[in-house]
Amino acid sequence: MTGAESLLRTAAAAGLDICFANPGTTELDLVKGLEGSGVRPVLGLFEGVCTGAADAYARMAGKPALVLLHLGPGLANGLANLHNAAKGRSPVVVIVGDHATTHVGKGAPLEADVEGFARPVSCWVRTSATPEAVAADLADAVAAATAAPGGVATLIVPADCAWGGADGHVAIADPPPPAVVKDATVEAAVAAVDDRAVLLIGGDALASEEALLAAGRIAAATGCRLLAETFPWRMERGAGLPAIPRLEYFPEAATDSLRDASALVLAGTPAPIAFFAYPGLPSEIAPAGLPVVTLSAPRQDGADALVRLAERLGVADGPPALGAPAPVAPEPGPLTAQSLGAALAAAQPEGAIVVDEGITASGPYWELSPGAARHTLLALTGGAIGMGPPAATGAAVACPDRPVVALQADGSAMYTLQSLWTQAREGLDVTTVIVANRGYRILTVEMQRAGIEAPGPVIAPLTDLGSPTLDWVALANGMGVPAEQVTTSEGLTAALERAFAEPGPHLVEAVI
Amino acid sequence: MTGAESLLRTAAAAGLDICFANPGTTELDLVKGLEGSGVRPVLGLFEGVCTGAADAYARMAGKPALVLLHLGPGLANGLANLHNAAKGRSPVVVIVGDHATTHVGKGAPLEADVEGFARPVSCWVRTSATPEAVAADLADAVAAATAAPGGVATLIVPADCAWGGADGHVAIADPPPPAVVKDATVEAAVAAVDDRAVLLIGGDALASEEALLAAGRIAAATGCRLLAETFPWRMERGAGLPAIPRLEYFPEAATDSLRDASALVLAGTPAPIAFFAYPGLPSEIAPAGLPVVTLSAPRQDGADALVRLAERLGVADGPPALGAPAPVAPEPGPLTAQSLGAALAAAQPEGAIVVDEGITASGPYWELSPGAARHTLLALTGGAIGMGPPAATGAAVACPDRPVVALQADGSAMYTLQSLWTQAREGLDVTTVIVANRGYRILTVEMQRAGIEAPGPVIAPLTDLGSPTLDWVALANGMGVPAEQVTTSEGLTAALERAFAEPGPHLVEAVI
Repeated sequence: MTGAESLLRTAAAAGLDICFANPGTTELDLVKGLEGSGVRPVLGLFEGVCTGAADAYARMAGKPALVLLHLGPGLANGLANLHNAAKGRSPVVVIVGDHATTHVGKGAPLEADVEGFARPVSCWVRTSATPEAVAADLADAVAAATAAPGGVATLIVPADCAWGGADGHVAIADPPPPAVVKDATVEAAVAAVDDRAVLLIGGDALASEEALLAAGRIAAATGCRLLAETFPWRMERGAGLPAIPRLEYFPEAATDSLRDASALVLAGTPAPIAFFAYPGLPSEIAPAGLPVVTLSAPRQDGADALVRLAERLGVADGPPALGAPAPVAPEPGPLTAQSLGAALAAAQPEGAIVVDEGITASGPYWELSPGAARHTLLALTGGAIGMGPPAATGAAVACPDRPVVALQADGSAMYTLQSLWTQAREGLDVTTVIVANRGYRILTVEMQRAGIEAPGPVIAPLTDLGSPTLDWVALANGMGVPAEQVTTSEGLTAALERAFAEPGPHLVEAVI
Repeated sequence: MTGAESLLRTAAAAGLDICFANPGTTELDLVKGLEGSGVRPVLGLFEGVCTGAADAYARMAGKPALVLLHLGPGLANGLANLHNAAKGRSPVVVIVGDHATTHVGKGAPLEADVEGFARPVSCWVRTSATPEAVAADLADAVAAATAAPGGVATLIVPADCAWGGADGHVAIADPPPPAVVKDATVEAAVAAVDDRAVLLIGGDALASEEALLAAGRIAAATGCRLLAETFPWRMERGAGLPAIPRLEYFPEAATDSLRDASALVLAGTPAPIAFFAYPGLPSEIAPAGLPVVTLSAPRQDGADALVRLAERLGVADGPPALGAPAPVAPEPGPLTAQSLGAALAAAQPEGAIVVDEGITASGPYWELSPGAARHTLLALTGGAIGMGPPAATGAAVACPDRPVVALQADGSAMYTLQSLWTQAREGLDVTTVIVANRGYRILTVEMQRAGIEAPGPVIAPLTDLGSPTLDWVALANGMGVPAEQVTTSEGLTAALERAFAEPGPHLVEAVI
């Protein structure tokens, strides 16, 4: 048995049976070992596809995702989506093939500081020293990725450690459960929750139906207000669950929304920080002087904490209020971000996984979809754009029986458009709605905020994607994905119905 | 004047008037400052487009390239092509906007270790500490990128250093000339050059017509053999210059080609190392015991060294032998890598810049093109694939009066296909020939070398790009580039003639 085979059998024995891969020559023995190993590779034609898919797979599958990449530059191409995975603490194990140990230090073109590339996004980095160590190294990587604080673990396997002889596979222990919060912590939250309090929910607490129902009962009983963190890692939403708006993106509005609060109670999320700094504005969203009470911190058991808070308040069996009515499709007419959000909310199928990288188009959809068919929402945890198309891919691999909907801005889709090919190859049931506003709209908004009302001829092109116009139907077709363009809300509704009715990937270019 | 304005005026005053950019909110003041600064931004829709373009721009423009990227993840997306620039020592100055200094350490989603991302590819990294320091920091970055050893210099500008007040711009001194080699070094080469010696030329020496003519005279007079390094940074080639084959890619063949040599004389390149390690093979290409004599090392004045060697041998005015006849177009019929190379060599226009990322298709073109119309060839210095489309873009920006030809493998083109949009927007005269073999052919070859004759059903898909088939005509059209597909050598010749006759970008999908 080679070191590569010992690694793959270790993974397969632990149920890690999918590997998002873009391998090369230094991974050849790992590739050889895949045949018959029980681990199935899913090919991405760009590494950011693999890492973004792994992030979403880990969010949905309830187990770590594996990624196989080629040397330092291959890892480098995957770093932006690993940044997102790291910020969300998604358990992702990245295996990077490196040159043979005998080849390092001689200046081959592809020699690079692989550990250096890995460190900024990884909670754990190791280079295997011998073929015999590779299996145990993988077990340690999985443990590091899954135990708190968790996140991205990077194992670098030199080619001679992959091709050399090893002893066999090792068993991977289940990760310890997340820490439960103390009773005194729950008591402090009890004291803080009143009819002017805001309960800000994030992290694992948004992913738990039980926790969300508890939060709804708490809000119904106490009159406190519920907010979701702006970019949830994984949020259960829709009919039967409380309608929870998200914390505003821009710091002035976010702070204003907390201005009259008696306290900010945090469940599963740290105190909110502005996405960007602006001259004269503080980084902290909470208004100065607002009491901030932590019910649960990230990676603690936030779902359990919310359930216990509801019990302690005596509302564990109360009605989970705050539901929203089912959305209705918008009036016919030219599409806007508003009518696009309404049409999608009305049409999305039961049980969908909605990957939200709509950027400026996300706001209307959020407002219009709390009463949509029950769904799971995955958002951009780390702000590195180009997460949506890969994440839709990985979510569909993790949950082949659920439809996946990608609400996707056109600008950010371009960073990882290669994902469409993997969706076509794997026959994944992903419907991508490209919000074609032909620009980096968020940057235009930021320019206006900075006082640039009319950008001059040198800088205006920096936010303009309309010259030439990206033809998303052609781009999708070029990668084997059926696509159509729509310009009206009724056209979008009809296109979505067609896409949802058929298996396999589809793309709708929604021009707004 | 803001810190951002002081930086841009410093760049413009030094003639650095192009900036390959994919900015975001943290770069807003740098974007504002561009208007009227004399620095023109060229937008890429993915950061790897910007960095690969900068690499080729620096190779062709004779001055450093500027890149403007957004935070850690934006830099991360550009790292693979910065790896290539670093290996080739292309002078590239990367400006990365970061969060305001007051915002760092608070856990904002996009906070990252930007210096950590930069270090593996950079010869110089600095984060500006104050707005007043930004201009001098840029001057230091340019100096680091241009003076030996040179390469990629990364300047991180926190947003508050960009928006804060500064004093003015600073002057950037010209870089010192490269060091000339000592007379004794030339004498050692004189002693080594005989009719069984091999003169391996690389780095700057390949970029100098004068040096290549000198090498041709040396070979004609002494009978020594000339070889070019396998992946030249910049090589002048074609009619009127000596025909110089490249060192073989696979180590067994490369070593065999040196087996009967009396000495290996190195001009502008280090002793060759195998691209990858293989079980049982040494990393070093030179056969054990072969005397290796360094005429000039990388970043020394290798062109001067070759001219002096010719003078010292008394052949400075001899005939520069070893030319090759002009190529003729191949017989009509279905395209092969061989006939594709022949058709391209015969059709390429005078003065072209040929960007070579043909991978397995590069070999035939190399063999068939030494007598082609005079051209400049840019190859993959660092082995990080996805260099070709961006490099063609950057070369065309640097040399708007020269046609650019990209010999491009289909697998590697997918990593940075967004380049086509920038070519369309800028109206660049780039003709991309996609070698559509529908696979990672080099990996198939490596599998065969490793004894995998018939890959099984799990791993065979890892080298197969044919399911679904990438439609490069659709992909190019989707980004505004006219395109056509050809399947025969006469079809390719006709398509190339049409593309070369028209200004602006074109793509030819050549199915082999």
